Amino acid sequence: MQLEQMNLEQLQTEEKKLLSTHQQFQASALKLDLTRGKPSAEQLTLSEGMEGLLAGKMIHEDGTDLRNYGGADGIKEARQLGGDMLGLPAEEVMVGDHTSLTLMYLYLLHAFYHGVQGPDTAWAKEGQVKFICLVPGYDRHFTICEELGIEMIHVRLLEEGPDLDQIEALVQEDPKIKGIWCVPKYSNPTGHIYSSETVKRLAGLGRVAGTNFRVMWDNAYGVHDLDENPPELEKIMDHARAQGCEDSIIQVASTSKITFAGGGISFIGASSSNLNHFRKRLSVMTIGPNKLNQRRHMLFLQNLEGVKQLMKKHAKILGPKFKTVEKLLQEGLQGRGMGCWSTPRGGYFVSYDAPPGTATEIVRLAGEAGVKLTPAGATFPYRKDPEDANIRLAPTFPVFEEVDQAMKVFVNCVKLACVQQRLQNN
Amino acid sequence: MQLEQMNLEQLQTEEKKLLSTHQQFQASALKLDLTRGKPSAEQLTLSEGMEGLLAGKMIHEDGTDLRNYGGADGIKEARQLGGDMLGLPAEEVMVGDHTSLTLMYLYLLHAFYHGVQGPDTAWAKEGQVKFICLVPGYDRHFTICEELGIEMIHVRLLEEGPDLDQIEALVQEDPKIKGIWCVPKYSNPTGHIYSSETVKRLAGLGRVAGTNFRVMWDNAYGVHDLDENPPELEKIMDHARAQGCEDSIIQVASTSKITFAGGGISFIGASSSNLNHFRKRLSVMTIGPNKLNQRRHMLFLQNLEGVKQLMKKHAKILGPKFKTVEKLLQEGLQGRGMGCWSTPRGGYFVSYDAPPGTATEIVRLAGEAGVKLTPAGATFPYRKDPEDANIRLAPTFPVFEEVDQAMKVFVNCVKLACVQQRLQNN
Repeated sequence: MQLEQMNLEQLQTEEKKLLSTHQQFQASALKLDLTRGKPSAEQLTLSEGMEGLLAGKMIHEDGTDLRNYGGADGIKEARQLGGDMLGLPAEEVMVGDHTSLTLMYLYLLHAFYHGVQGPDTAWAKEGQVKFICLVPGYDRHFTICEELGIEMIHVRLLEEGPDLDQIEALVQEDPKIKGIWCVPKYSNPTGHIYSSETVKRLAGLGRVAGTNFRVMWDNAYGVHDLDENPPELEKIMDHARAQGCEDSIIQVASTSKITFAGGGISFIGASSSNLNHFRKRLSVMTIGPNKLNQRRHMLFLQNLEGVKQLMKKHAKILGPKFKTVEKLLQEGLQGRGMGCWSTPRGGYFVSYDAPPGTATEIVRLAGEAGVKLTPAGATFPYRKDPEDANIRLAPTFPVFEEVDQAMKVFVNCVKLACVQQRLQNN
Repeated sequence: MQLEQMNLEQLQTEEKKLLSTHQQFQASALKLDLTRGKPSAEQLTLSEGMEGLLAGKMIHEDGTDLRNYGGADGIKEARQLGGDMLGLPAEEVMVGDHTSLTLMYLYLLHAFYHGVQGPDTAWAKEGQVKFICLVPGYDRHFTICEELGIEMIHVRLLEEGPDLDQIEALVQEDPKIKGIWCVPKYSNPTGHIYSSETVKRLAGLGRVAGTNFRVMWDNAYGVHDLDENPPELEKIMDHARAQGCEDSIIQVASTSKITFAGGGISFIGASSSNLNHFRKRLSVMTIGPNKLNQRRHMLFLQNLEGVKQLMKKHAKILGPKFKTVEKLLQEGLQGRGMGCWSTPRGGYFVSYDAPPGTATEIVRLAGEAGVKLTPAGATFPYRKDPEDANIRLAPTFPVFEEVDQAMKVFVNCVKLACVQQRLQNN
């Protein structure tokens, strides 16, 4: 029955039932965790064969001694893989160490203090600059802005990607808006994929927003499909080039959720002009990335086709977990006025929107019943969801049974919070 | 014969002879390189056995899945090794990826913009801050200061380490001096080792220079001995603690010149209070270091004793190269008024001081004869040696025969430049 059709007595009966279930969960002393988007042990084991591949292969066929210093851009076959993943020629890719988060941080740091195209273009010189943050979104993107003192303006992410009418109007009105964070495929946490139209318009946003503006294109889940016939994301750089905006696109990706989360390789792709400026910055802090790990990866993965084959094995492990999340949400909450949720075809998250004002309480209740959830608000800049509605569910790390159990607890918590809110408002 | 005792005719005869030798070198189309402090292929091969050790050992005995995200401080046995190398308890060490240069850069960045002990202590808030740079010194330290706009004051490095009378006077006079770069053992490029007295006084410098001051203690060559009975460096933190100055010491080291220059692990050691602040910064840009590479290293190196054993093998390879440098300099230049040089007992460099005004010309001549040298001035802030005297020689990377050949060319270039300068001044 729809929540709003229930009368007082029905609500009270329902609350009693839900509380009793809740207490049973509490009594069983669960210790479950749906917080972070980490791969599971089973997934990580898929790449264990990588260890040892480097033996006798530490000197590259091109003569480079991979054991020694140097090679700021990374090894060529890794650049090629990065290019294939990001839709760029290898020359427009630099390969970094195991975390694309570091590349994003350093790029923004560079843009802020040193300037994307030299000192005159430093954002810091323009006073209080701003960034567009799509919500719900990825907390670590927001934290980078916070660290640098960049003001965040949040804009709701739609099913097709960001609302370009709204965004174009914003950047036109305010030249201090210097960028936008995007996770274009299987967006964190909604799982949305930006439509062709959206990608095309984002690619040309620089024409409206100015030469100093950067679309931060974090393609973290570009190959993280769950379906047999996965959707394709438009190649943003092709569209940017066509509109003369190639300098406004900065792309990143990594193998963190392909091979090892704690020991993969990462990619940053951008126009040669952007990379030339960024390379200068990197040269101050490092004498090149870990080329041995890059080589080890390439011996293991070979190329994009190899990556796709590996991702199918990941999908086999992840598919059932996402399915049980969807099934339990549907069975428990569908058509009851108890929020809505995304049904992603890939990526690492499910986004759940509770009735406004209940997210914090749901997270609290779940914690009480032994299920750790990402704090409500985490998917918003400054950790503040004005509606107190969004909760990010991360079903990848726990084993299937734990996901299943945790989601049963979660669904009960949602119902309980919704019924209690209704009772309070009565 | 001493240069200054030669008459015009003798100088002209000598010039002719030297020029003829120089032209012979030119004709033999050499391609030799004494520029950067890189380990040689032979040295790097010593650590090839590391590859493969991780197989089946990617989950730590303490339960940590090393393949996954997390563990900002690094794995415990690597922290222990870093502590043993730096003279600190493991808890005061964080283990990073393959470059301590990155840790130094990030630490200074943190100190400059965010503050060593929180926002109120940010150097950037104090206007034009300064750093003491010992000369000759390490160019990459200077570049970090330049990048951040920190003004560099150079102070001559003495045999026993920095002149503390001079330095204490400087920091007492100018509270905007916020730190000093030190390579305390086998200093780059002189090979000097700071005396006990110097280390003790540096350890207490914070009492004079204020709580915001940092001694950047880059112990890059702490175990890089050439002698059988190597000299010991005082543990600076013990002395700092005794003087209540533990917060003013920041230490780094790495295995870049122990295992793989392009794929080692690095350490930063500091008081818990300093690390707590720095950790916050790192948490914005990374979800932890590459723990797999740390583990691989520890399986290979085991502990400090293992490191020392490995370093003996390095010394066997490097010893003859340093000896030939010393021998050729002595035979060719000793007692002739043609400069002086260091005879290091470890490290990666030999520092040569030419008669003032000839370094640039010597480097030019050597280049002409096929021997690449680090540009004159590189060992000084802003790449400007006011005396145009210092040249850094790096004999580690080329094979023995190349070092030998390159030094013969070098000695001839020195003589030629000296004789020609003398002729011009006549």
